[in-house]
Amino acid sequence: IHEIGWTLEMAEKGGYEHFMLKEIFEQPKAIKEAIYGNAEVVERVAEEVAEYERIIFVGMGTSYHAALVGKYLFQRLAKKIPIVEDASEFRYEFEDLIDDKTLVIAITQSGETADTVAAIKLAKGSGAKVLSIVNVVGSLATRIADLTLYTHAGPEIGVAATKTYTTQLTVLSMLAMALARKLGTADEGLLKELEAELRRMPEYVDAVLRLDDKIKGLAEKLREKRDFFYIGRGISYPTALEGALKIKEIAYVHAEGLSAGELKHGPLALIEDGVPVVALAPSGKVFEKMLSNIEEARARGAYVVALGDDIRLSEVAQEFLRMPQVNELLSPIVYVIPLQLLAYHLAVLKGNDPDRPRNLAKSVTVE
Amino acid sequence: IHEIGWTLEMAEKGGYEHFMLKEIFEQPKAIKEAIYGNAEVVERVAEEVAEYERIIFVGMGTSYHAALVGKYLFQRLAKKIPIVEDASEFRYEFEDLIDDKTLVIAITQSGETADTVAAIKLAKGSGAKVLSIVNVVGSLATRIADLTLYTHAGPEIGVAATKTYTTQLTVLSMLAMALARKLGTADEGLLKELEAELRRMPEYVDAVLRLDDKIKGLAEKLREKRDFFYIGRGISYPTALEGALKIKEIAYVHAEGLSAGELKHGPLALIEDGVPVVALAPSGKVFEKMLSNIEEARARGAYVVALGDDIRLSEVAQEFLRMPQVNELLSPIVYVIPLQLLAYHLAVLKGNDPDRPRNLAKSVTVE
Repeated sequence: IHEIGWTLEMAEKGGYEHFMLKEIFEQPKAIKEAIYGNAEVVERVAEEVAEYERIIFVGMGTSYHAALVGKYLFQRLAKKIPIVEDASEFRYEFEDLIDDKTLVIAITQSGETADTVAAIKLAKGSGAKVLSIVNVVGSLATRIADLTLYTHAGPEIGVAATKTYTTQLTVLSMLAMALARKLGTADEGLLKELEAELRRMPEYVDAVLRLDDKIKGLAEKLREKRDFFYIGRGISYPTALEGALKIKEIAYVHAEGLSAGELKHGPLALIEDGVPVVALAPSGKVFEKMLSNIEEARARGAYVVALGDDIRLSEVAQEFLRMPQVNELLSPIVYVIPLQLLAYHLAVLKGNDPDRPRNLAKSVTVE
Repeated sequence: IHEIGWTLEMAEKGGYEHFMLKEIFEQPKAIKEAIYGNAEVVERVAEEVAEYERIIFVGMGTSYHAALVGKYLFQRLAKKIPIVEDASEFRYEFEDLIDDKTLVIAITQSGETADTVAAIKLAKGSGAKVLSIVNVVGSLATRIADLTLYTHAGPEIGVAATKTYTTQLTVLSMLAMALARKLGTADEGLLKELEAELRRMPEYVDAVLRLDDKIKGLAEKLREKRDFFYIGRGISYPTALEGALKIKEIAYVHAEGLSAGELKHGPLALIEDGVPVVALAPSGKVFEKMLSNIEEARARGAYVVALGDDIRLSEVAQEFLRMPQVNELLSPIVYVIPLQLLAYHLAVLKGNDPDRPRNLAKSVTVE
């Protein structure tokens, strides 16, 4: 008899060493499911969303970062200015501030996040309409909301959110586009371009996943670093926050996401020889500004890892991860992937279990 | 002839070792000036502010944190939900989003901050009304705005903002109160209490300054720490950001401000034995929640420094800095002072010049 050296758990991991890695690699498929699963329903939801002038996004952790991306998308495409609140703040501060002219968009993977559920209840109690964007079918957040969009990512076992984040971004992109078309607030040519790019998103993500070996090598170079800074502007700012959060969660390294414009207002004092600065620099309206922020950091000795599609980045950064060329409005989906992989490899190199980070639970169902 | 061992610079420092320390100790006087200097004009400005439903605060660095405090004050007292934007984001994202129904409140100490000035110009070009809150008289931000409130803090030489921050908060508190009275959105009893407390603010700040020796001792205990976390909820959340920024700017230690509700969503993985967590816990609606966040951090080994007026904090935290009892809406003015002192003493212990931190300029007049 030939013994098979596989446990049941390994089988469930589909040959991957950890659930997190498996889930990172499932993203092309998950994004495809999110697109097909929402193609019709997003139109109907957009019709309702279009009625509201006051839109408040709420979420916690990674879902809060998705909410921030949602804000930029709504601004650029639908010409609406949403408010984004950490659900734990919203629930205690917004009691008497909202009414039936408010739409609350609540983002939660599990649909059971205590603060986000409390935020939904507060919103409902105030007469506001609630749209939930959720992964787990039939969860509390879907039952108490007026409307739900599912992310269709499938079960996520790793505590650090990966495929549930990129599918949240996929759904938000679709919603913003549908809203823009209804409101006539974006150029039809742009919308067609974005739709075509979104359909190709699984291929873009596949292309980025092929950088895995390179990113593993990068993790080896960075494994002894104690501080990381992630910088971004515009719609890449939330990606900086999310990249830093992944490192915190599983590599247990102090990483911080910053708006690149804030560097000169204080954080630059921390940049000295060899401090890693991960710069998110897709082509787009703020690319030149990012380039000058990167030079600024370099001049103070930073070890810059730049993600972008413009070859000039390879001259200013010590490490250049070349990204596929996508419209900057969709770039958050693509650019977060190398950051997930970097955090994963750092965690493994440090001997941490990325699937079960210390002190953290998958869903925060208590306050 | 008896030689006087004083240089001109020392004389200007009024006997203090650094301008920053002098400016920290000038806060009772600066706050008093801010109160008297604005007593009348704030009424007229509030009348104009009352006209606007859409209010957008912009600022950078410390002024951005003041803007966040302004948001909480406007929410609680005037029942308005302002939007707060980092000026470097606003200037590139809000081009076609605002109009003459928008009021932009721009906060800048120097009145020359490049991003904030650009934000004001964008706002003016879009037909929006602009109120500047500025320290330097006659500066650019005052000349291009429709309305100006001065902070009357006097010249600030230290690069890290101290008295200009607490006077910004003073002005914002006065504006929110005047607005609430005009709109009838706050209880008259509460407004009277807040006004009386604000008048006594110089005494409260004096009382906190007397903790200087204790804080110096605390800095000695913490001098080798490499990471600091500052946590707060509600109106204390911006204080957490500001406390962390001070440490970054002059002590060159990686400090991060967090919404306490976000701890469980990732940052808790970084909390291990001896990691300092500075908790801002004034009495008020979220005090019990903060208490449980502190216990959470303690359970993971954090070295907790708690600021508050409730004696229970002395049981859960290793270090307790007892603050005067003030309404939580005014607590940001009082609670930031020990954080300024802590950063100052850490900087000095590390041999840094707190007045001239590396890589930073007093006013960021280039992008």
